[in-house]
Amino acid sequence: MSNWLDDIKWSEDGLIPVIAQELDGSVVMFAFMNRDSLGLTLEKGEAVYWSRSRQKLWHKGEESGHTQKVLSIRTDCDKDVILLTIEQIGGIACHTGRHSCFYHELKNGQWQAVEPVLKDPSEIYKK
Amino acid sequence: MSNWLDDIKWSEDGLIPVIAQELDGSVVMFAFMNRDSLGLTLEKGEAVYWSRSRQKLWHKGEESGHTQKVLSIRTDCDKDVILLTIEQIGGIACHTGRHSCFYHELKNGQWQAVEPVLKDPSEIYKK
Repeated sequence: MSNWLDDIKWSEDGLIPVIAQELDGSVVMFAFMNRDSLGLTLEKGEAVYWSRSRQKLWHKGEESGHTQKVLSIRTDCDKDVILLTIEQIGGIACHTGRHSCFYHELKNGQWQAVEPVLKDPSEIYKK
Repeated sequence: MSNWLDDIKWSEDGLIPVIAQELDGSVVMFAFMNRDSLGLTLEKGEAVYWSRSRQKLWHKGEESGHTQKVLSIRTDCDKDVILLTIEQIGGIACHTGRHSCFYHELKNGQWQAVEPVLKDPSEIYKK
């Protein structure tokens, strides 16, 4: 029997790019998943990514509490990108304490931060 | 003087992933750009990607007429992903004739096409 995970076109590294979008349309994050993390994402109903820098599974929000409740999982025509619809718990997706990671906008030839810091990262990641 | 293109963290291949989103929030496409194509995107005000399969610049819509008018260019906290806000000319971003490339949704353990074909691809790409 064919498995939905087998239908995915994984990269040579066994990864797939993932876009996380809120129900209202805001794109808040971009990261990668491997087969295990995509399977766990469905199983838990919360986004579990693959951290390329740390080379380990990364249950988003495991430190910050800012988990992502998964409402739907889509893929594209080529089945090589995932689009998650999520509810961002705490309203903060970015490690800088902003709502979305996409807070730099190109204006007058420069990248300008156009979204406010909602919470100091030292408050979010305190041990 | 620093150039906004120098601020981008290009991959080893000299590429950056790009998400194309309409003003109403719909994510319609995902592709890659290199330095030239991102520069041209700003210059033309229309999305110009880098086709990895064809290894050439790809002015989206050059064949189909379904160009993407660029309304804003954002990047994320790590400056290694681009988020474009676009107006999708013709209302069709996908080569399958659908509005968005993200038309497969995971339902009951299977990828199901949940968006209609708006125009037959043979009509879109007729020579």
